[in-house]
Amino acid sequence: MSKSTFSAANSAYDYPLLIKRLLTSSLHFKHNNKISYRGTEHFSYQEFYQRVCKLANSLKSLGVQKGDVVAVLDWDSHRYLECYFAVPMIGAILHTVNPKLSADQVIFTMNHAEDNVVIVNDDFLPLLEGIADKLNTVQTIIQVSDNAAVAETRLTTTQAPYEELLAQAESDCDFPDFDENTVATLFYTTGTTGDPKGVFFTHRQLVLHTMNLVNTINTADANSLFNQGCVYMPVTPMFHVHAWGMPYAATMLGVQQIYPGRYEPNHLTKLIREFKVTFSHCVPTIMQMILECEESTNTDFSGWNVIIGGSALTEGLAMRMIDKNIQPFTGYGMSETCPLLSLTKLTSQMLSLPVDQQVAHRIKAGVPTNFVDMQTWDANGNPQPHDGESKGEIVVRTPWLTQGYYKEPQKSDELWDGGWLHTGDVAVIHPNGYVEIRDRIKDVIKTGGEWISSIELENLISQNPAVLNVAVVGIPDEKWGERPHALIVTSDSKCSVQSVQNHLAQFVDSGEIEKWAVPESISFTDDIPKTSVGKIDKKKIRQNLANEAS
Amino acid sequence: MSKSTFSAANSAYDYPLLIKRLLTSSLHFKHNNKISYRGTEHFSYQEFYQRVCKLANSLKSLGVQKGDVVAVLDWDSHRYLECYFAVPMIGAILHTVNPKLSADQVIFTMNHAEDNVVIVNDDFLPLLEGIADKLNTVQTIIQVSDNAAVAETRLTTTQAPYEELLAQAESDCDFPDFDENTVATLFYTTGTTGDPKGVFFTHRQLVLHTMNLVNTINTADANSLFNQGCVYMPVTPMFHVHAWGMPYAATMLGVQQIYPGRYEPNHLTKLIREFKVTFSHCVPTIMQMILECEESTNTDFSGWNVIIGGSALTEGLAMRMIDKNIQPFTGYGMSETCPLLSLTKLTSQMLSLPVDQQVAHRIKAGVPTNFVDMQTWDANGNPQPHDGESKGEIVVRTPWLTQGYYKEPQKSDELWDGGWLHTGDVAVIHPNGYVEIRDRIKDVIKTGGEWISSIELENLISQNPAVLNVAVVGIPDEKWGERPHALIVTSDSKCSVQSVQNHLAQFVDSGEIEKWAVPESISFTDDIPKTSVGKIDKKKIRQNLANEAS
Repeated sequence: MSKSTFSAANSAYDYPLLIKRLLTSSLHFKHNNKISYRGTEHFSYQEFYQRVCKLANSLKSLGVQKGDVVAVLDWDSHRYLECYFAVPMIGAILHTVNPKLSADQVIFTMNHAEDNVVIVNDDFLPLLEGIADKLNTVQTIIQVSDNAAVAETRLTTTQAPYEELLAQAESDCDFPDFDENTVATLFYTTGTTGDPKGVFFTHRQLVLHTMNLVNTINTADANSLFNQGCVYMPVTPMFHVHAWGMPYAATMLGVQQIYPGRYEPNHLTKLIREFKVTFSHCVPTIMQMILECEESTNTDFSGWNVIIGGSALTEGLAMRMIDKNIQPFTGYGMSETCPLLSLTKLTSQMLSLPVDQQVAHRIKAGVPTNFVDMQTWDANGNPQPHDGESKGEIVVRTPWLTQGYYKEPQKSDELWDGGWLHTGDVAVIHPNGYVEIRDRIKDVIKTGGEWISSIELENLISQNPAVLNVAVVGIPDEKWGERPHALIVTSDSKCSVQSVQNHLAQFVDSGEIEKWAVPESISFTDDIPKTSVGKIDKKKIRQNLANEAS
Repeated sequence: MSKSTFSAANSAYDYPLLIKRLLTSSLHFKHNNKISYRGTEHFSYQEFYQRVCKLANSLKSLGVQKGDVVAVLDWDSHRYLECYFAVPMIGAILHTVNPKLSADQVIFTMNHAEDNVVIVNDDFLPLLEGIADKLNTVQTIIQVSDNAAVAETRLTTTQAPYEELLAQAESDCDFPDFDENTVATLFYTTGTTGDPKGVFFTHRQLVLHTMNLVNTINTADANSLFNQGCVYMPVTPMFHVHAWGMPYAATMLGVQQIYPGRYEPNHLTKLIREFKVTFSHCVPTIMQMILECEESTNTDFSGWNVIIGGSALTEGLAMRMIDKNIQPFTGYGMSETCPLLSLTKLTSQMLSLPVDQQVAHRIKAGVPTNFVDMQTWDANGNPQPHDGESKGEIVVRTPWLTQGYYKEPQKSDELWDGGWLHTGDVAVIHPNGYVEIRDRIKDVIKTGGEWISSIELENLISQNPAVLNVAVVGIPDEKWGERPHALIVTSDSKCSVQSVQNHLAQFVDSGEIEKWAVPESISFTDDIPKTSVGKIDKKKIRQNLANEAS
């Protein structure tokens, strides 16, 4: 059967999904919302657009070309947001450097990424000075500072620092069209073994992720949580998975944005109070720090909606948030996934439940968003039923997944084994679609041929009011292979090994856990080791315990 | 500067934007929302998915292949929605036939589209029987009926009608991946001259349109208008620009959907009342019919949000909607644009205004949505300033525009002249971004070297309480070139040429219009001619007036 082809007009415009569209979209509607830094500097969207143009023109005049890599070492700031746009909008690649890595890891990532330009806050200048002679590709260093004058340095930097470059540049720029599959961003994820691995995202992926992020957040419950009337502040660092993609979404929507600078709980809390922040996202440990800081005692948090991600939201922390009138949601994703995979989704029925029953939904890992195909696979790659019981590794397909690890073909193939991206997370999916993460594959405690979820144990232990924080890891055991060990932070002198075991006994009685899941081995500490992005560092805890044992 | 390429894993999955993802996304979260037909048949989303699979399997077993065209002649129904998915999901093209066209035009469109299969409701069987011997490509006719048995016909149809085909088919189907730029839908737009023109949309375009539609609606005011807690009913026919794309969005979101069948104002009103419909969209004339129908007198419309589009929402109609507790929004777009280009966007400040001032925002054509680049061009292609005064033709670029008119290379090039799609609408853009349509280029009344907007006059005349409906067109005038003529529907015997002119005099006094814009020529009628999609048919009105004059 012959069929005429559908041909486009000669001059029809084939619209590529480019990051510049997120920014220009924000200018369609004029409003008074501002983009603010630390509560002291404020920019209208029109001014912000001009600053992005100026930065783009500055970078081009410094010789930055399509495909070049521009690294950023800064706190969460309007300047960082300018880099989010200006760098990819001229076809260059934004490398968001994690300054909390060890110096050796920073050297590794910057050489591996082949950074050409570094934009560095004076606060990170000592770090950069210490490693500069080991950086193989960096040609240009641009200083930014929160002070009137930039710091002295022995490094060769551009004659004009960031603000002066912008002051000298043209405030308009004609951003070119190019292939939407051009890489826009690059950053590194630290696994438990080996060197950091680079993940990368294209313009198309980031635009689609942004569109879906807004859709998902605005259908998470009956209200619109993310629109031009909201006040947004990131509490997940901008070097970490594009601050979960939220700054792109916030800018597209034209909301009021507060960039807090360096994270300091009292300062964050003051900003939340002063600017009546309505929407944020963070890892549990930061939330805990905010709730425990001095400023929080005289702060009314009501109206603050927070997506918790990065690691599991415990029932205890969720209840403490709700006590403070903070509405908790849980998001799930990872560096490799841009990151959004799933988010809390509440029906009016769920919202009408008593708080403790509502919390049971809120602390799960949410429901896969639109365009996220998710399955849970057993060790043989068989998809598991959505029965709330059958565990499997989460594997996904979406339009916004890193297509591999940069220059690591073998690890890339492992990541994408079988044509699905492997998250390394073990979960069950409930009949209503809710995902419940049971553990990282490598953190599952394998004891006597059975699996104990370290997260499940942490969740139960955290419900003890005396427990401020807890981590559970597997420790080697001659008889059983592994046994659980609980590391606990408490401020209550009566909290003991026995009291924690007694606390767990009730869950054995109710059938929630087996008797053999209760740890014999429990220790107390002032501080639980964290990774550079604030997650519990179980690798470190296992190492420490091994050192103590030997 | 050499740079390693970013290579994908061998088995990385490159996720195409296909319509099947809208449907599978709706299954991620289990809920009790139903897809209902006429208030009598109800299907869960799981059942609906199975029916889509069955329809796809049925079509394949009838020999439908990738690139084949499947035409539909049906009222708004769950079956039509099944075709929205099943046909493109097997790589075929859905032709949504406009049954309100003349028989000759239906023949033209079905031959031009090269329809292979027709799915026809018994109500349209007489139409099809009358033209069947002039259809050159149709091989298969599938009957659907609202009765237990399909009607007798002299046409050769499939042995099993629609429901029997589905009953016989497998309820699972493995929908293939293919290029997201594959054409999914095709339909015809009737201009004022010449044959209908075919516009076509790809999977990618429809997916992006859907994502953006949800984003836009859920940030139109402070509330989320479109989420799983909503009840949706289309009141724009499904043959017309995919019912503005809403059924795709509603399905992706998993909302409760009510398909009303044939549009009859009392029946529509009963459904709104019975199912507590929260979200719809329609042209002004249908809204008027609903407000005036018998059932509306005892119906509480509160909670009903309605996007008005297709032609201008007058202040009078908007106020009548608000009096009935219906919240009006205005959308702007056209067949060529999929259709969404702009939508009302209300800040909390606007929402706090007195109703009449709020209405001034609501009746404008909204703000260009994200990803819609819009300019207004003068006759020489110069973009006009956003000053609320400078008129120009709206030209656009977005990711969801027809790339041409099907098999009409010359008209395609005219549509896309200069690399922007020409809408044929004359508008001003206000400093805050709001678009205000002043007229169709061809409906503007050119008098004495000046332009009078026919829509502006209609809007002012409609504010006269005696005026139920009004259309203004240009009529030839020897001295001035053209003069305006107003055609008015009234039920008030005191409404006269003089009273309408007196009514307009106040706007001359207030400076809103010039004295020479007041029509000398005014006539009264029981009914204003409408096009097949319910818009005022100014071409017909001009013809009638010319006939009367001659």
